[in-house]
Amino acid sequence: MSQVRCTSVILRFGEIGIKSNQTRRRMTSLLISHVESALREKKIPFEKIHSVYGRLYIETREAEKAAMVAARVFGVVSTSPAIQTSAEMDKILDIGEQLARTQFKKGLSFAVGARRIGQHLFSSQDIREQLGERILDNLSELELNVNLSNPEQSIYIEVRENKAHIFTQTIKGVGGMPTGSQGKVVCTISTGLDSPIAAYKVMKRGCIPVFLHLDNMPYADNQCSEIAVKQAQLLANYIHGFEVKLYIVPHAPDIEEARKHAPEKMTCLFCKRNMLRIAREIAIQENADAIVTGEIIGEQASQTTANLRVIEQAVTDFPILRPNAGDDKVDIMHLAQEIGTYDFANEGASCCTLNPRYPSVRADPDQVKSCEEPMDFGILKDELKNARIMVLREGK
Amino acid sequence: MSQVRCTSVILRFGEIGIKSNQTRRRMTSLLISHVESALREKKIPFEKIHSVYGRLYIETREAEKAAMVAARVFGVVSTSPAIQTSAEMDKILDIGEQLARTQFKKGLSFAVGARRIGQHLFSSQDIREQLGERILDNLSELELNVNLSNPEQSIYIEVRENKAHIFTQTIKGVGGMPTGSQGKVVCTISTGLDSPIAAYKVMKRGCIPVFLHLDNMPYADNQCSEIAVKQAQLLANYIHGFEVKLYIVPHAPDIEEARKHAPEKMTCLFCKRNMLRIAREIAIQENADAIVTGEIIGEQASQTTANLRVIEQAVTDFPILRPNAGDDKVDIMHLAQEIGTYDFANEGASCCTLNPRYPSVRADPDQVKSCEEPMDFGILKDELKNARIMVLREGK
Repeated sequence: MSQVRCTSVILRFGEIGIKSNQTRRRMTSLLISHVESALREKKIPFEKIHSVYGRLYIETREAEKAAMVAARVFGVVSTSPAIQTSAEMDKILDIGEQLARTQFKKGLSFAVGARRIGQHLFSSQDIREQLGERILDNLSELELNVNLSNPEQSIYIEVRENKAHIFTQTIKGVGGMPTGSQGKVVCTISTGLDSPIAAYKVMKRGCIPVFLHLDNMPYADNQCSEIAVKQAQLLANYIHGFEVKLYIVPHAPDIEEARKHAPEKMTCLFCKRNMLRIAREIAIQENADAIVTGEIIGEQASQTTANLRVIEQAVTDFPILRPNAGDDKVDIMHLAQEIGTYDFANEGASCCTLNPRYPSVRADPDQVKSCEEPMDFGILKDELKNARIMVLREGK
Repeated sequence: MSQVRCTSVILRFGEIGIKSNQTRRRMTSLLISHVESALREKKIPFEKIHSVYGRLYIETREAEKAAMVAARVFGVVSTSPAIQTSAEMDKILDIGEQLARTQFKKGLSFAVGARRIGQHLFSSQDIREQLGERILDNLSELELNVNLSNPEQSIYIEVRENKAHIFTQTIKGVGGMPTGSQGKVVCTISTGLDSPIAAYKVMKRGCIPVFLHLDNMPYADNQCSEIAVKQAQLLANYIHGFEVKLYIVPHAPDIEEARKHAPEKMTCLFCKRNMLRIAREIAIQENADAIVTGEIIGEQASQTTANLRVIEQAVTDFPILRPNAGDDKVDIMHLAQEIGTYDFANEGASCCTLNPRYPSVRADPDQVKSCEEPMDFGILKDELKNARIMVLREGK
């Protein structure tokens, strides 16, 4: 019996499947184009990607690699490298036996899973029973035993009309919705853990990011902007088919101006208010819908609910999305480890040396307004003019 | 040898430990008072709760029950029912052996973990080695073997100054920060899965919720408000020491007014804009800092980034917190199952019969404004006057 080889990848998507016909078609087509782009980028050859009954299938002679790459495209819930054959019981039994022979480990329990859509001369239960028997009979040297409720290894058969896919492995995908199914959003990126995770979360939901990093030099270490560029680049690599920009905007002049007119304990609040104002200008310029920050309720003095209110009032015509608002730091750390930003983040680096020792935890909105009255906000426009704009990802 | 019994519970907290002295003291004191209140509510007797080196200890003769109850208090990362003894090696070995005898399962691997703070005649390593040997020697009938890297069961010893705590079990806590360490927030609650989870997340971070449910009758099933009350009550039970209210506000009059002046496809947008306006009135009345919604980017037509912008512009002086913004539906479902709101949620119930068939997915902010010009917003004040206010939880 010749060695079996996977030449197909099954792609599963989640929420796309429950959308209206029109939305589902649009999202599926976005998803196909992003998967194609991801495969091309990694130089993985493939024949075509087609959509059948709420699944996508990639035909490729590098199914294992393709399954790994596709699993990291937003919208993909899971992938499986699979062997494709025709929907005939003989073929299914032959290939199922061969796959079990190469994949199953000796002495462990196993189960056969089967699902079927279309008209066939056999039922799903027939597949499960016959393939199970066949494996027990012909692979007796593996000393396997059947365990339907909690098997240590499994083989699955999915029959759809005249085709069958057989596989043993399922790779967890990043989930979410296809990039471009939502609008652009301005994602603020510092050098810490939180802001890249906030950006990742909204990107995962289909948004196209425009990254904004505020450069605190000379009130920061040299490497801070470099860290931000690395984080933004890592995130940008998740995007296919759309241009991704990073704005690096000098921030010191406006903080200096704020410190001239406000008590030290309120420095962080004016810093954040100005950050939102700069983000707003970029949102208008880039035709974005929203501003995204990494704020977590109660993580820092500037992130008490009272201070979030004071900060938010600086921008009234764009939503400020804070997808981390209700997370614990430990959740953020785990996700950062998963997606890779953890290694770049430098929460220790001195990326702001102006942090007040006793920051205000419950600023008064009226006091904030009166402090801002004499401030020159023309400085923000100048900072924007001096922005460095990097293209991290080319569009189509 | 007499049967050993846990008379102590170790409580671990996470982020509180990295706060400034003053904040940490305030938060620890909040946490102690909430744990006391939770124990009293469940009628679990206890002697006292004391704080030593970044841990809390409850002295109680019902340590197992107390550990379960305390694990559900916001701010608690984990708990362990433990045996308390003096920090002497003989005592540790005797009790460690007895605990292993009652708790360890036959034939499995085990490890001894030990940590030590203070001056002692022995090291942590001494405890690990001596207790490990003792267990192997004296419990040979259990056929145990040592596995330090990946044990199937463990016994832990924590020595702090003149006391030692010995335990085998760690119960995962809800995490977060103590209730009342943040301000009040108005949490909108529908009958679905998302909004209770959004409320839970911000409550977990220390916020005190004021619940708001908009009653769509007669454009909804009868049971919708009942579902909302159940969800809010379940959530309110997590709060100790603060009053929790639920506002049920009639919503039909303002939706009817909106439908008179706006195209059908924009119904949901005006509904949400008015929801935020009502939430804002309550926020002012209750002295709250923010408004919380369950919105997930892209989950519904009204939740595209473009439409979130249109909705958000209705309220400009309070932050709208959307802690679910970057989640997938499946994440929300899992958390709802964990905390128990899943059983009450009724995404199928007709809690709004006015949903347009073809809702707008990218409304024009200018069109929204011009539609609203002739609308009578006095209706919102009348609705608020007719609100039913329930007290779900008494304050102190």
